[in-house]
Amino acid sequence: MTMPVFYDALTVHTQSHDYPIVITENAAIENSSMAQQVAPYIGGQQVLIVTNETVAPLYLKALEDELSVQFTVRVCVLPDGEQYKNQTSIDQIYDALMAEHFNRDVTLIALGGGVVGDMTGFAAASFMRGVNFIQIPTTLLSQVDSSVGGKTGINHAQGKNMIGAFWQPQMVLADMSTLKTLPARELSAGIAEIIKYALIMDETFLTWLEANLPAMMALDLAVLGEAVKRCCQYKADVVAQDERESGVRALLNFGHTFGHVIETNEGYGNWLHGEAVAAGMVQAAELSQKIGWLTHDEVARIKRVLILGNLPITPPVIEVETALNLMGHDKKVKHGQIRLILLKSIGDAVLTNDFDHELLSEVLSQYSA
Amino acid sequence: MTMPVFYDALTVHTQSHDYPIVITENAAIENSSMAQQVAPYIGGQQVLIVTNETVAPLYLKALEDELSVQFTVRVCVLPDGEQYKNQTSIDQIYDALMAEHFNRDVTLIALGGGVVGDMTGFAAASFMRGVNFIQIPTTLLSQVDSSVGGKTGINHAQGKNMIGAFWQPQMVLADMSTLKTLPARELSAGIAEIIKYALIMDETFLTWLEANLPAMMALDLAVLGEAVKRCCQYKADVVAQDERESGVRALLNFGHTFGHVIETNEGYGNWLHGEAVAAGMVQAAELSQKIGWLTHDEVARIKRVLILGNLPITPPVIEVETALNLMGHDKKVKHGQIRLILLKSIGDAVLTNDFDHELLSEVLSQYSA
Repeated sequence: MTMPVFYDALTVHTQSHDYPIVITENAAIENSSMAQQVAPYIGGQQVLIVTNETVAPLYLKALEDELSVQFTVRVCVLPDGEQYKNQTSIDQIYDALMAEHFNRDVTLIALGGGVVGDMTGFAAASFMRGVNFIQIPTTLLSQVDSSVGGKTGINHAQGKNMIGAFWQPQMVLADMSTLKTLPARELSAGIAEIIKYALIMDETFLTWLEANLPAMMALDLAVLGEAVKRCCQYKADVVAQDERESGVRALLNFGHTFGHVIETNEGYGNWLHGEAVAAGMVQAAELSQKIGWLTHDEVARIKRVLILGNLPITPPVIEVETALNLMGHDKKVKHGQIRLILLKSIGDAVLTNDFDHELLSEVLSQYSA
Repeated sequence: MTMPVFYDALTVHTQSHDYPIVITENAAIENSSMAQQVAPYIGGQQVLIVTNETVAPLYLKALEDELSVQFTVRVCVLPDGEQYKNQTSIDQIYDALMAEHFNRDVTLIALGGGVVGDMTGFAAASFMRGVNFIQIPTTLLSQVDSSVGGKTGINHAQGKNMIGAFWQPQMVLADMSTLKTLPARELSAGIAEIIKYALIMDETFLTWLEANLPAMMALDLAVLGEAVKRCCQYKADVVAQDERESGVRALLNFGHTFGHVIETNEGYGNWLHGEAVAAGMVQAAELSQKIGWLTHDEVARIKRVLILGNLPITPPVIEVETALNLMGHDKKVKHGQIRLILLKSIGDAVLTNDFDHELLSEVLSQYSA
């Protein structure tokens, strides 16, 4: 029997309550371990596990069987993909809850990546005006990013994450072993968000990544666990300061305004979120260079580390007009002005609209037809 | 020119922020007054007024024209009725917001009754994970009840108010003049909720109502304003103690578990919410009598005051089995036990499952075929 390896846990402080992120290994492999980790955080007798068609065959049965000893467990299996992050999927979760006569005591468990986590969280936030939920993120991206901080939601046909709520989980279980079944492209997508933390917050972490990315790409779970822990701690610190994103939290969206343009224009699901963010971070870095903040060498360093993570550094062809229009829908628009997160230097990000908007068009036009 | 009559204002204290309820008269009549009252509470430049097809012809134009001087104002007119309190209507609000490229700065204004208020509030809670909203309740029911306390939401095909959020408005404007255009049946529905406050919280208020209900039914706006103020204050006090309904706030649902059964069984929109609550309060009182808490005379007094308000005191025919099943969906069910709000005496309510459930079936069977 492979024993679960317990790396570490950290506590996230939020306005509503504190919750732990447990970073471990092999909980998914042994029959009882995932269930044993999450059971203490289930308040009532009712559990709805929400997962998708890809993750279900891998981890659902063990979790469901084990929890069923103690709880009334039901399952909602959604189709896999960002293109299903919509109201139809939320309605499926509601319908599953209603069919079982589940009530305010229910705990929802999100078993899957960021899409499953965001949707399960929003369903938890809105079912009976709010019930508990637990996250078991099974992708690197969701382990470092979307399972921390309480952002939940779905896409609108005209924009990503337009509908949602701030709602905090009771517990997050990040089991590194789940990364063994993750497609390489999705591993890279998670690496993009890890690199993001280095770029906006800590140049020394970028140096660490330059040394350790090869091990991470080769699925050294201990090194991956260390990276996840660092990123969760960065994010937990930021969220504790600014849960509702009125200030510093917005910096976590570095590369995301450009990235959202790519995702929306290409159709949800064609570019992975992390891939779009990677190319978006390059665009944000290039704009930072045009303004005179980053040097040519720093932009080149950013591109190199993204390439180490097997990530795209060039967005698809999008007309400037189209891109600016899509940016107009971004949640960071204030009083009609496009605000962007740019880098003063590596490790130092700012949210600003104080730049020559011609330079933005210049950056975008490099990638138009 | 009829000058606005300013009765009074009170402040509601909530976890997120304090907000005022302004109780006034004639703000709706004069060209600028509603707009003048709400304008100071609009933070950004963008306003979406949400209303319905019944209220729009009465008050929309003046409000829209006047606010348009200062703000970018758009309108979303929904069909009227509880049967439209669903995801489709919420989607219409989202679509209106997205079509205008509105963002986090937007303020939603709910102009209408409780259905408009609940839906607008939920759209505000969930659009971009939360934007500001203001309530202008135009029915007595929404003035005394649904515009205070931050409960927002929609119905699910299998149950009332199953989807929603706690989300507080920036301000509530209760203009008594709007009651002049309110159908008599809806005035009575509001009276039901007013009587509810007396029954659960204050026997002296019941005595006041017995004396003043005739004036209220004859649309004496000053007397109605006094009743609205009292009820808002009762509710504000309760909500300040227990915003998320873990304790005392549940008492405000007196008559509602029985009432929800009526509404769900008869189809949303056929019985008005207040009518269903009135008949439901009679059933709750009858059960309280069977337990030995209320006397026969007290139950008779409750029926008399409801009749003064022109309210039904008998529910429609519903099979016991059906009623119990529908109660199983109620948000107050805990660990599978039906909990009900019952009266120890007039003015003293408790939430309890500590009663002989045979007595509940007895009460229900009086109204089965």
